[in-house]
Amino acid sequence: MTKKNALYAQSGGVTAVINATASGLIEAARSHRDQIGKVFAGRNGIIGVLREELIDTSKETRPTIERLRQTPGGAFGSCRYKLKNPTRDDPDIQRLFEVFAAHDIGYFFYNGGGDSQDTANKVSKLSQQLAYPIQCIGIPKTVDNDLSGTDNCPGFGSVAKYVALSTKEAALDVASMSESSTKVFILEVMGRHAGWIAAAGGLAGEGTREPPHLILFPEVPFDKSSFLRKVDATVRRVGYCVIVASEGVQDTNGNFLSDAGTTDAFGHAQLGGVAPMLATLVKDELGYKYHYAVADYLQRSARHIASAVDVEQAYAVGKGAIAAAAAGEDDIMIGIERLRDKPYRWRLTHVNLSKVANVERKVPRSFRTKDEYGITARARKYLQPLIQGEAYPSYRQGMPRYARTKNQLVAKKLPRYKVG
Amino acid sequence: MTKKNALYAQSGGVTAVINATASGLIEAARSHRDQIGKVFAGRNGIIGVLREELIDTSKETRPTIERLRQTPGGAFGSCRYKLKNPTRDDPDIQRLFEVFAAHDIGYFFYNGGGDSQDTANKVSKLSQQLAYPIQCIGIPKTVDNDLSGTDNCPGFGSVAKYVALSTKEAALDVASMSESSTKVFILEVMGRHAGWIAAAGGLAGEGTREPPHLILFPEVPFDKSSFLRKVDATVRRVGYCVIVASEGVQDTNGNFLSDAGTTDAFGHAQLGGVAPMLATLVKDELGYKYHYAVADYLQRSARHIASAVDVEQAYAVGKGAIAAAAAGEDDIMIGIERLRDKPYRWRLTHVNLSKVANVERKVPRSFRTKDEYGITARARKYLQPLIQGEAYPSYRQGMPRYARTKNQLVAKKLPRYKVG
Repeated sequence: MTKKNALYAQSGGVTAVINATASGLIEAARSHRDQIGKVFAGRNGIIGVLREELIDTSKETRPTIERLRQTPGGAFGSCRYKLKNPTRDDPDIQRLFEVFAAHDIGYFFYNGGGDSQDTANKVSKLSQQLAYPIQCIGIPKTVDNDLSGTDNCPGFGSVAKYVALSTKEAALDVASMSESSTKVFILEVMGRHAGWIAAAGGLAGEGTREPPHLILFPEVPFDKSSFLRKVDATVRRVGYCVIVASEGVQDTNGNFLSDAGTTDAFGHAQLGGVAPMLATLVKDELGYKYHYAVADYLQRSARHIASAVDVEQAYAVGKGAIAAAAAGEDDIMIGIERLRDKPYRWRLTHVNLSKVANVERKVPRSFRTKDEYGITARARKYLQPLIQGEAYPSYRQGMPRYARTKNQLVAKKLPRYKVG
Repeated sequence: MTKKNALYAQSGGVTAVINATASGLIEAARSHRDQIGKVFAGRNGIIGVLREELIDTSKETRPTIERLRQTPGGAFGSCRYKLKNPTRDDPDIQRLFEVFAAHDIGYFFYNGGGDSQDTANKVSKLSQQLAYPIQCIGIPKTVDNDLSGTDNCPGFGSVAKYVALSTKEAALDVASMSESSTKVFILEVMGRHAGWIAAAGGLAGEGTREPPHLILFPEVPFDKSSFLRKVDATVRRVGYCVIVASEGVQDTNGNFLSDAGTTDAFGHAQLGGVAPMLATLVKDELGYKYHYAVADYLQRSARHIASAVDVEQAYAVGKGAIAAAAAGEDDIMIGIERLRDKPYRWRLTHVNLSKVANVERKVPRSFRTKDEYGITARARKYLQPLIQGEAYPSYRQGMPRYARTKNQLVAKKLPRYKVG
C-alpha cells in the first residue's frame, strides 16, 4: 500500500485557536510519515480545494508550524461555501473527488462547525458509493459552541474568556464614572442563534449587584418593557447597569432586533447592531447616558488572552484527528468529553458524524435564571473550566509574534473549474 | 509644624493604569509618614471633595493598595465636573477650601487631563490669595495623550497597545475570510480631538500591504471620495481593507461624522458611531461586505494587556508626586521626559502648571503620511517605546484578580453642600 496524502480545510468563521488545531494536525502528521504523506491545505478552505489551490504545508518550517499554535485567524484561509447538494451527480462533488484522485488524497480533515461536519459525513458516504477510498474526519471548531456530540467546541473557550474579562474591565470603568456620567453600558457579542458567548459574559461577576446585570440571549424573545424595567431598577439600585447582548436577540415575532431598518442622514439604509438599538431605547425611554461597545471580530481573534484550556483542546483535536486517521477511522468527528468539573478533566472521543451533522445546541433553560437575564450556578459550573489559564503568545517590540505561513501552492494537474 | 493630610482626586475618563498611579502615590505617602498624614481620596473625584465625601485610604490594606497597580477603572471613582469659574468668590472654591481646612489638607493631588491641570493651577494660585497654604501637584492621566508639558501621558500606552494588537488580530481574521466574505473592516477608537489612539493602530503593520490600510485622524477633514477611492484600491490590490477610525473624524465643515442624525425603525434619533456610518458608506458606494467593531470602554479598561512601560510610568508619577510634595513643590505637574528612543529611556520632570493647562497636543503633520491615511517612521519612533512589555495581572479561576477597595468615608464635619 502506498502512502496517501492528507487534505485539511478550515471552514466558516475563524477563531483565536483554529491555527492551534492546524498546528497539532500538521505536527502529528509529520510524526506519522509511515502512513501519511503530505498534508495539503485548501487555500481559503473548500473553495480552494475545488479550484485545485492546495497549499503544500510541507514547505512550512517547524518553527512556523509551532508558532501557528499562538496565531489567530485562519493561516490557510477559510470560507463559508456550502456544498449545496452533495450527491454523486453534483458537479462540486465530482470535482472534489477528481482533486482527491489527482493529488492522491486518502484523508480528508474538515475543521469547522455543523455544516462542515455534515459535508464530511456526506463525502464519507459518497466515497463508498464512488468506490474512491477516503477517510473523512471532522474536527470541531466554532466560537458559537453550538455543535452537538461534543461537550464544548475549540474556539469557544477563548471568546468566553475575552467576553467575561472585557465585561469585567468595562464594568469597572463604568462604575467609576456612573455618579456623573454613563449609567448604562452595553456590550454586543456574537451568537446569532445560540447564546453561549453572551452567557460567558455572566462569568464577569456573581450576585445581583455585580455586572453584568442583564444578559440578552437569542434564545429569549426580547420584551421591551420588561427590559426597560429591569435596566431602570438596576440603575436605581446599583448606580449603573451593564448589559451583555447577543447579536442574535430577536423580538417576539422572531425578527432580529438588528434587522430593524434604520436610515442615516444620507437616506442610506443602515444595518444597525443590537447595541446601538438598545442604547437608543434606553436613552429615549429612560433618559440615561449610555455607551456601547461592539466586540465583533476582536472577540474571536483575541489570541492575546486565549484560554489555555481552549488552546490545549484545539491543539489536541488536531493531533487526535491524525491519530484517528492512522487508526483507520472514517466518518467520525473528534469530540471532547468532560470527565469532571472540578478539577476539570476531559478526553477526546470519536463521534459518529451522522450524530453531529446539523444539530444546533442552544443554551438550555436550566442555564438561564428565572427572569431570563442571568446565568445559573449550573451554567457557571459548565463555563468556568473552559476559560481556565492564560496561554500568552510570545512578544517582540510590544507586539505578539504571529506566524506567517508561505502558503505555497502545489502544481495544478486538472483543468480549471468555476466555483459557485 | 504638624503633619498635614493629603487629598487625591481622580478626574475625567478613567484608564487601565490610573489606579497604578493611586497605588504609587499611596505607597509613597505611607513611607513619608514623617511629613504626610493620611491620604484621603475624593469619592467620585472632585464632586466627592465638594460633598465632603472623602475616602480614608489608610483603611485599605497593603495588599489592596499593591493590587491597585493591576486594576483598571478608577477605584475611588472619577467625574467630569469642571470648576467653572475658579475665583475666590466662587462657591465651589470657597467650599473646597472649607473642606481642606476641616480635614487639615496640606497637599492636593489632582490626577487628570488638561482641565484638571488647569484647576490644580488655579487652586494653587487661590491658596496664596486666601492665605491657606496648600501644595498643588498635578498628575497626568489621559488615554488621549493630548497633554502638553510631558512626552506622553500615563493611560495612553496601554490603549495604544490594545488598539495596535486588536487591529493586528482582527486583520488576520479578515484576511482569512476575505476571498468569500468580509472585505472591509473598520475599528472605531477613541480620540475626539487628537488622533493619538488612531495613530497607534498603525503599529499593527508596516508597509503598504499590511493593515491598517487607512487611519482616519480627527486632525484630517474627512474626504468622502478620496476615502472611497483608497478603500476600493486597497481591496483590489490586497484583497481586503482594514480601517482604524477615530471617533472624532469630522467632515470638511468641522462636524463630527458621528453626529449626522440617524433615525431608527421607531423614529428615534440614533447617535451613530463613526464605524457604522463609514460601513454604510462602503456598502452603498462600493458594495463590499463589511464588519465593524466599536472598542469603546474596552480599549481604555483593557488592563489585561496593559503596556508594561505605561504601568511603570503611571506608578512612577504617583510616587513622584509624593516626592515632589515632600520636597516642598507646588503648582507643578509631574511630567515624563524622553531621554532616548532605543533603548527607551525616560525620567520624571516637574513642569510648571501654567505651561500645561488647557494646551491640547495634536498628532503633528510630520507623524502622518503624505496621503494622510497612515503614520510615518517618525510616528513609529515615538509610539513604539510606549507599548513595550506586558504587565499581566494575576489570575484566579481564569479571571484577573482586580482590587476591591473598601472606600470607607471619613466622618463629615461640615454642613451639606449642593454640587452643580
